[in-house]
Amino acid sequence: MREPLTLDDFARLARGQLPAATWDFIAGGAGRERTLAANEAVFGAVRLRPRALPGIEEPDTSVEVLGSRWPAPVGIAPVAYHGLAHPDGEPATAAAAGALGLPLVVSTFAGRSLEEVARAASAPLWLQLYCFRDHETTLGLARRARDSGYQALVLTVDTPFTGRRLRDLRNGFAVPAHITPANLTGTAAAGSATPGAHSRLAFDRRLDWSFVARLGAASGLPVLAKGVLTAPDAEAAVAAGVAGIVVSNHGGRQLDGAPATLEALPEVVSAVRGRCPVLLDGGVRTGADVLAALALGARAVLVGRPALYALAVGGASGVRRMLTLLTEDFADTMVLTGHAATGTIGPDTLAPPHHAPPHHGPPTAPRPAPHRDRSHG
Amino acid sequence: MREPLTLDDFARLARGQLPAATWDFIAGGAGRERTLAANEAVFGAVRLRPRALPGIEEPDTSVEVLGSRWPAPVGIAPVAYHGLAHPDGEPATAAAAGALGLPLVVSTFAGRSLEEVARAASAPLWLQLYCFRDHETTLGLARRARDSGYQALVLTVDTPFTGRRLRDLRNGFAVPAHITPANLTGTAAAGSATPGAHSRLAFDRRLDWSFVARLGAASGLPVLAKGVLTAPDAEAAVAAGVAGIVVSNHGGRQLDGAPATLEALPEVVSAVRGRCPVLLDGGVRTGADVLAALALGARAVLVGRPALYALAVGGASGVRRMLTLLTEDFADTMVLTGHAATGTIGPDTLAPPHHAPPHHGPPTAPRPAPHRDRSHG
Amino acid sequence: MREPLTLDDFARLARGQLPAATWDFIAGGAGRERTLAANEAVFGAVRLRPRALPGIEEPDTSVEVLGSRWPAPVGIAPVAYHGLAHPDGEPATAAAAGALGLPLVVSTFAGRSLEEVARAASAPLWLQLYCFRDHETTLGLARRARDSGYQALVLTVDTPFTGRRLRDLRNGFAVPAHITPANLTGTAAAGSATPGAHSRLAFDRRLDWSFVARLGAASGLPVLAKGVLTAPDAEAAVAAGVAGIVVSNHGGRQLDGAPATLEALPEVVSAVRGRCPVLLDGGVRTGADVLAALALGARAVLVGRPALYALAVGGASGVRRMLTLLTEDFADTMVLTGHAATGTIGPDTLAPPHHAPPHHGPPTAPRPAPHRDRSHG
Amino acid sequence: MREPLTLDDFARLARGQLPAATWDFIAGGAGRERTLAANEAVFGAVRLRPRALPGIEEPDTSVEVLGSRWPAPVGIAPVAYHGLAHPDGEPATAAAAGALGLPLVVSTFAGRSLEEVARAASAPLWLQLYCFRDHETTLGLARRARDSGYQALVLTVDTPFTGRRLRDLRNGFAVPAHITPANLTGTAAAGSATPGAHSRLAFDRRLDWSFVARLGAASGLPVLAKGVLTAPDAEAAVAAGVAGIVVSNHGGRQLDGAPATLEALPEVVSAVRGRCPVLLDGGVRTGADVLAALALGARAVLVGRPALYALAVGGASGVRRMLTLLTEDFADTMVLTGHAATGTIGPDTLAPPHHAPPHHGPPTAPRPAPHRDRSHG
Repeated sequence: MREPLTLDDFARLARGQLPAATWDFIAGGAGRERTLAANEAVFGAVRLRPRALPGIEEPDTSVEVLGSRWPAPVGIAPVAYHGLAHPDGEPATAAAAGALGLPLVVSTFAGRSLEEVARAASAPLWLQLYCFRDHETTLGLARRARDSGYQALVLTVDTPFTGRRLRDLRNGFAVPAHITPANLTGTAAAGSATPGAHSRLAFDRRLDWSFVARLGAASGLPVLAKGVLTAPDAEAAVAAGVAGIVVSNHGGRQLDGAPATLEALPEVVSAVRGRCPVLLDGGVRTGADVLAALALGARAVLVGRPALYALAVGGASGVRRMLTLLTEDFADTMVLTGHAATGTIGPDTLAPPHHAPPHHGPPTAPRPAPHRDRSHG
Repeated sequence: MREPLTLDDFARLARGQLPAATWDFIAGGAGRERTLAANEAVFGAVRLRPRALPGIEEPDTSVEVLGSRWPAPVGIAPVAYHGLAHPDGEPATAAAAGALGLPLVVSTFAGRSLEEVARAASAPLWLQLYCFRDHETTLGLARRARDSGYQALVLTVDTPFTGRRLRDLRNGFAVPAHITPANLTGTAAAGSATPGAHSRLAFDRRLDWSFVARLGAASGLPVLAKGVLTAPDAEAAVAAGVAGIVVSNHGGRQLDGAPATLEALPEVVSAVRGRCPVLLDGGVRTGADVLAALALGARAVLVGRPALYALAVGGASGVRRMLTLLTEDFADTMVLTGHAATGTIGPDTLAPPHHAPPHHGPPTAPRPAPHRDRSHG
Repeated sequence: MREPLTLDDFARLARGQLPAATWDFIAGGAGRERTLAANEAVFGAVRLRPRALPGIEEPDTSVEVLGSRWPAPVGIAPVAYHGLAHPDGEPATAAAAGALGLPLVVSTFAGRSLEEVARAASAPLWLQLYCFRDHETTLGLARRARDSGYQALVLTVDTPFTGRRLRDLRNGFAVPAHITPANLTGTAAAGSATPGAHSRLAFDRRLDWSFVARLGAASGLPVLAKGVLTAPDAEAAVAAGVAGIVVSNHGGRQLDGAPATLEALPEVVSAVRGRCPVLLDGGVRTGADVLAALALGARAVLVGRPALYALAVGGASGVRRMLTLLTEDFADTMVLTGHAATGTIGPDTLAPPHHAPPHHGPPTAPRPAPHRDRSHG
Repeated sequence: MREPLTLDDFARLARGQLPAATWDFIAGGAGRERTLAANEAVFGAVRLRPRALPGIEEPDTSVEVLGSRWPAPVGIAPVAYHGLAHPDGEPATAAAAGALGLPLVVSTFAGRSLEEVARAASAPLWLQLYCFRDHETTLGLARRARDSGYQALVLTVDTPFTGRRLRDLRNGFAVPAHITPANLTGTAAAGSATPGAHSRLAFDRRLDWSFVARLGAASGLPVLAKGVLTAPDAEAAVAAGVAGIVVSNHGGRQLDGAPATLEALPEVVSAVRGRCPVLLDGGVRTGADVLAALALGARAVLVGRPALYALAVGGASGVRRMLTLLTEDFADTMVLTGHAATGTIGPDTLAPPHHAPPHHGPPTAPRPAPHRDRSHG
């Protein structure tokens, strides 16, 4: 295996190894995949302002999130069934993240039990939750998470049902029989091999923001809301008592046409007014992407697909390598933009996107007086 | 046949089945086809603002149009000669639309009689009208429509002659002999196998807005104007007493360079000031497109080419499947953007298009003082 | 030969017939050919506002230019050596233009004598002039033009030397020996087979605007300036007493990076303030292009390369066919935009270019207050 | 060898001659090479305003820089190891530049001794300096430069370590053993065959602006700062007493995502307020590029990669040919934009980039009043 040097390398390598339908399930998005593409494209258009002679030997890349200090502003986003990428599954991911002190958000649709993942972890774990029509199922997961030492819950708020993922429909994709939602039973689990159809039956479409308080009361854990992209939803989340917000469009897998996450970030940050930390997932692939998110007000970012690609490529050591590449690239970017610590990263570090050169010529002409001339008027 | 999952799928499948020149006749536009391409491209650039935890079990997708309630804001636009796509022709389309309660606008150049189409229909029918030099021909069609239970007339106002469609000229396209304008006779019918040449002989280029009142008087039916793209024309239409306006560039088949329909919509809606409903056709292919049109003030949309493609692929059941895909996609999009009913869909649901990230850096510099320096001035 | 339906068709057909180096000499531009490409691209981005029910049977496409009425606002721009395209050369072009009543601007580097071209013409002829270091050569051409009934002179003002045309340099292009500048002798003619090198020796680089008056005095003919792209140059031209201005970048063959002609037009028209007619050449290929130029204040347009391509494809009848296509397309465009005569064509006929849909959402957020939160501040 | 006619031709020819990994080392940039691409792209989008009848026989292309008059505003940027391109190395480059009176900036990582390069030169030499952790190494180079007649020092301020150049990492690139940093010894030289790794060990990351004064004091030479892209850094440089600033992003080899140099230029020029000359490198390939840089306030430009490509293609005579092409192209561009001397080149010479035609139509419509109509309200 050629040594991956970037997160994109991991994607390319994983694509070559995974069954095509599995690749599509992980890599694909909803509809025409416009939002999926926009997530990365908007990051790719970011321009950074460098700093000459920064005078920094080693930058402090750490951030504080919900009372914990992360060695870098990077965690792993919730993704279903890590076993699709590698038989070692979620415990391998947790071990890799833990070795670097970085957090993992475990999915409701993890293929291994919350408790088993917790045993493999040595850094903060959070649990992502969908709310089923039977609320007790979800509340039960929250309590189990607390009992296993998970430090926070992440309620997904953008998924009354899963978006229309055409690749999976064309592939007739079903999760292989040996991979199951290890933490679910009964109606919550039944039929989950076809996530789209399952979500329409099982998820509670009538869920409202009061569930944040119920989750908190049931578990005693802080609750973040994942899937907020607008100011009104950010206001609602804060009013509901969330401990944090994850700006996310579900990796482009829900509403095709939704804004890219980096586009949505400033509106959410502005609405939140510092009342809770704002995180972001979707499209982060380089250290410059991490810095851009922080510059626009994110406390930290989460990476989802890259974790599964790295897991596919090299198991736990692949994930560790991926996280190391990303955090080292972030550290270099901090130095080259003159930041010794994350606290100083702000909007001044961003420059306007590449465009045509500045113009100083005369303005465009006003309306002409048409069709009149001196000699033949 | 692989199961189509999107309206684009129907187009691809139809292209594989239809004779190339027939495909070109249906799919093509005028001139360089810039407006044709723009119709879809502008919809494709729309960004939607999602709503977290919408709390909607099933949205009410219905709208009221001219006193009728449509189960979804989608009808079938007038297209000539459905028989080019499938031998079952217009009655099959009418039956499919009717099965879903959605309206069909029958073309002046239908291949089957108005009466036969009416017998197949179970939802509102409207009749599209070109005005021939012999006005009586057109007025006669209007009376027949009334007598057969059609509920409205749609006067095309953008076609003094048909635009220059290069594909048809290159193909030497003529409508096959077995397909004829079933509702026309005499000079109105003669030569209609070559639509471009025929229109230059048969259509009344001097037609003015007073014809709206004449149509209404002759038939007692409400008259909509189809082909309005600007405020002055919208004003003229309203002043002429139209019951509705269809924002349309004739599917990019008339003035190449005309605005995309979604671009033109706000200007028309603003000019109309609620005095009549505004519909739109041209480029609608997804539920997000339907929502975008409603967000900018359309009451409903019409789809033309997709109906013929679906007819080609699967006859009446193909059309029914196409309409079902589109309306279900619209329903999902309503939920994900937080609309329980169509009446709340407004411009706040649209976000700016994907672009470079917001910029907070210093402004571009003013004019430099060129060529002066401290040490060597 | 397949029947050409557009001016682009003539280009494609000509490319297949002409020797590659001849094609490159005609089709090519200076440097990276950015301005060459921009001329057509900017026209291609024009959007037109249609008019419903225009009520026009046949539009009057004529315009008055320098006291003559042209049946359409289209003439043939000066191009060297028509014999490169077809052995019938300039007389064939003149005959074709004359048959339609449209003017031809004969080049200083015509391959046939001014007098021979005049005998073939039946519509206005103008003579384009470069000014040689020996001014008398140029003044002599002006007198001969007057004596042969030419109606105006067109002084090229953008060519102190010809721009760096890389295609010709790579091809080692030289005009074939049997094609010579029939109207030049002595030093003005010597070496003209390699136009780039010749221009550096023969053209008067010190020429100033006083030469306009000298040309007028010597010939008694009105003098237009061709190659004006900015307000200051337009002011200078008017001050020098020109009878008209041709907005031109020499078909992208001089300063690569110069504005597209349609971009430059409003500035020139605004500076001229109706004191003389403004024409335009460069990039005109469709009736919509002609209309766009008139909408922004041009009195008429000139087409250069299309004439040579049509000549290559079909001799005089090819040119006639090309001009007919262009003027008929213009007439159709007039009708579809609601103009019964050219005098009403103005800027209101242009719409903004196709772009993303109008946006009505909330504004982009202000600077976030970075890195502060309620619970862990 | 086909005769190169542009700087791009030299690049193409060099690519065909050099080992792929050597090509990549010279041509490549950091990260995704966005800044690398932007440097040329932004120049390529520049539009120039031409001048009719400029009346200039031969323009004066010279500029004064740090008390010397350069025959054209073009020098050679510092590039490591010219021996990678051609065995004649830096002395050949110096001889070629000297033959045209143009300056060369010698790299700290030159493959030949400063003294040997000085012997081959006949025009100003400057020495580029990285600062090693052992400052004395760098100060010693500065003194040697002074002793050999170098006229200025150029301190690189954008490289606490070299950017992550993926091509070199993928290629496992190392400088061939026979090419060494001729002017370095000991720890400064050790390991320099792998520039990325070497820089992380050897460069002083804590360097601050006080080193400018130390360099000046040690050498008595003026010190320029290379790698400034923002106003704050320009202010710091001026405050530190630099004799000049080179706007540079290190050819896109340091911070990927940094602004293109032409984009950054106005901000730096504005901040400097004429207190020292501003130069620019990165992306200059044509005479129009040189003119654009001067128009936005640069005193002169430097070209780096083109020099190595030309050296690869033709040794010293290749470099001379390259510089001749560029300066002659600049002279032609000056004439066509109406500048008899460089002092008049200013922002008025730039036009807005090519874009859609000016629009004069009605403004975009305001918010529609949705869903209300006269007849069915």
